Amino acid sequence: MDEKFAELYSEHIKQMKASAIREICNLIAKPEIISLAGGWPDPATFPVEEAREILADILDHHWQYALQYGTTEGLPALREFIAQWAKQHEHIDITADQILLTTGSTQGMDLAGKTLINPGDLICVGLPSYFIGAFTIYGAQVIGIPVDENGMQIDILETRLKELHEQHQRIKLVYIQPNFQNPTGATLAMERRTKIIQLADQYNFMIVEDNPYGDINFEGHALPALKALDRSERVIYLRSFSKVFSPGIRLAWVAGEAHVIRKMAIAKQYVDACSCTLSQYLMYEFCKRGYLERQIQKNILFYRAKRDFMLQALERYFPSGVRWNRPKGGFFIFVRLPEYLDAGEILEEAVANNVAFISGAPFYVDGTGCNTMRLSYAQSSNTEIEQAIRVIGQIIRQRLKP
Amino acid sequence: MDEKFAELYSEHIKQMKASAIREICNLIAKPEIISLAGGWPDPATFPVEEAREILADILDHHWQYALQYGTTEGLPALREFIAQWAKQHEHIDITADQILLTTGSTQGMDLAGKTLINPGDLICVGLPSYFIGAFTIYGAQVIGIPVDENGMQIDILETRLKELHEQHQRIKLVYIQPNFQNPTGATLAMERRTKIIQLADQYNFMIVEDNPYGDINFEGHALPALKALDRSERVIYLRSFSKVFSPGIRLAWVAGEAHVIRKMAIAKQYVDACSCTLSQYLMYEFCKRGYLERQIQKNILFYRAKRDFMLQALERYFPSGVRWNRPKGGFFIFVRLPEYLDAGEILEEAVANNVAFISGAPFYVDGTGCNTMRLSYAQSSNTEIEQAIRVIGQIIRQRLKP
Repeated sequence: MDEKFAELYSEHIKQMKASAIREICNLIAKPEIISLAGGWPDPATFPVEEAREILADILDHHWQYALQYGTTEGLPALREFIAQWAKQHEHIDITADQILLTTGSTQGMDLAGKTLINPGDLICVGLPSYFIGAFTIYGAQVIGIPVDENGMQIDILETRLKELHEQHQRIKLVYIQPNFQNPTGATLAMERRTKIIQLADQYNFMIVEDNPYGDINFEGHALPALKALDRSERVIYLRSFSKVFSPGIRLAWVAGEAHVIRKMAIAKQYVDACSCTLSQYLMYEFCKRGYLERQIQKNILFYRAKRDFMLQALERYFPSGVRWNRPKGGFFIFVRLPEYLDAGEILEEAVANNVAFISGAPFYVDGTGCNTMRLSYAQSSNTEIEQAIRVIGQIIRQRLKP
Repeated sequence: MDEKFAELYSEHIKQMKASAIREICNLIAKPEIISLAGGWPDPATFPVEEAREILADILDHHWQYALQYGTTEGLPALREFIAQWAKQHEHIDITADQILLTTGSTQGMDLAGKTLINPGDLICVGLPSYFIGAFTIYGAQVIGIPVDENGMQIDILETRLKELHEQHQRIKLVYIQPNFQNPTGATLAMERRTKIIQLADQYNFMIVEDNPYGDINFEGHALPALKALDRSERVIYLRSFSKVFSPGIRLAWVAGEAHVIRKMAIAKQYVDACSCTLSQYLMYEFCKRGYLERQIQKNILFYRAKRDFMLQALERYFPSGVRWNRPKGGFFIFVRLPEYLDAGEILEEAVANNVAFISGAPFYVDGTGCNTMRLSYAQSSNTEIEQAIRVIGQIIRQRLKP
């Protein structure tokens, strides 16, 4: 059957690999599996009472609109709220017409790819980085820039830009998560933030800044978003309601220069016409009723305790010779094993013992990273976390060379 | 600003025109406008009571799942229901793993385009046809095949296929709405259905069969879907809940050969990860509780009366020399003016008089159709329909040559 259709497929889909993260959804559907795999929020954080109250009100008063198609750009009142919120909380100077509501930030990435990428275009991402299939499906060639504990190494990015410039080549965009990066949990240092903005101007590239975990900040203060430093409107800024409210409503927003947002909106007309209108009304009322700020504070307390618990479990159960970071926010701890260990093999054995995580290799576009793993403390209970870390620790210990 | 970003855009987005239908959403947001433009259902048909009951139950019992990410393929129970429903109602023999839930059929088209189209690939669509930006954005070259009162003229399609074959060229896919086509309202005749299936095998192309209005069938019996005639699994079948339940929940499904569906699911992983989970639970419960069949019957009565009313208004207010069809289902009446009249100019004058419709030209890939217009009876009240038809009739009358 594969052969019969083979010649009908597009070249890019032929080369497209399934997302390791999405595929693991099928695996962890088994109830006996403890999963540290997905970057899924804990349902315990979902604001169910508020959602129940708001949905009842919407179906009483706004059903004519909330069940109907909406504009492709999204509910104007919600975009106005977001513009105000971004100004107040992130010092980002945008108006509602510079905001497009999207069906998750996954769609924001796809629309950026669709709007910017021609086959063969070069892009840069972290080494490691969250999966960048949204760009490669349009034919982007990906260059990995190493990430250390202070995020993407912008000096290495600059060297690559210079080399490419000398070869009369250029990069089209840099995809970056400056805060609590997926998968490393690293936060981009302040001087690197100003530097990448300067490089974008100098070498004429766009920055796709993805900030899904920005609101889950354990340290009380935040470094400015690249978008807030962006004087020449090179930053396409992706923000999501998935982690702060609920992923199931599939709602996020992207902010950028009005002309770029307009192009992305035209692309969205042919991608899904508009995002779920019911979700948009739900989220707007959630914001308008003042629930957003309270929810953010609740999430921070919840996930900080989870992070601390997993860090303690790692100290207790993981052997020496294994290193990991202490993330300042977000969902993930990134583990580096001794070079000779293969996290993929460890994952296989872990799954046989009903424990799942994500091995790091798929996050490395250069094929390295086989000795790394991403552990999420977001979705499992403390009991489950302890059990899972104990099991993984044992497996590692058995494979360590003396 | 346009210039600054010009060199950063992808080639396809540069050439992409905004959808006339989507753009008109901004226009018809003015409350004083009577719109016969959008193919939007009348909110009076929305099953609000049922939605209220179901959403309350979901938030009581299933909120952990309904607000969480789901699998990319979609809620298994809903896909099982759809497989059974398609078997029972449309004699389509599919299993749940041949079904992918999508964020509207707009997304189904986009995923088909992404999965099948390479730049330069030839595709065929009706002349006129619903907008096919989902294919052209991936670089498809479009050939228009004339549509008459019995749908796409498959004999003309066959001639084109032969010609292309002699030139060692081929078409990749045919996009077709066999039932109550948008914009003409035409239904594809039975012998044309069997013929296009036979041609697909003979000339090795895929068929994207889009059936958004299939459930709004005024005649009591339906011709078989192409998918039901499809023995060699060449048909990708798009079905939507937008017209039968509500467009705001953005939920549709696509059925096809398992391998093709798998490829489309991989593409979807990078497009929006999954469709709105809350919508999926809402729709599943709506189906499970037996509301779907009742809703379909209610819609048929509602829209048949609307169609009849608009037909009467056309008889009364449109001058002779103007022709239109009597659709057997769906939302649209297609009007053909004398060749020398320009529906775009008539639209302009109508909008100045607070009446909107869609001029036919954007539906014609060959630039013809300037003397046609699409009128939707779906969304306006009878009073509004009468007023709008009267206004448009007057404008036409003033422009008729004696």
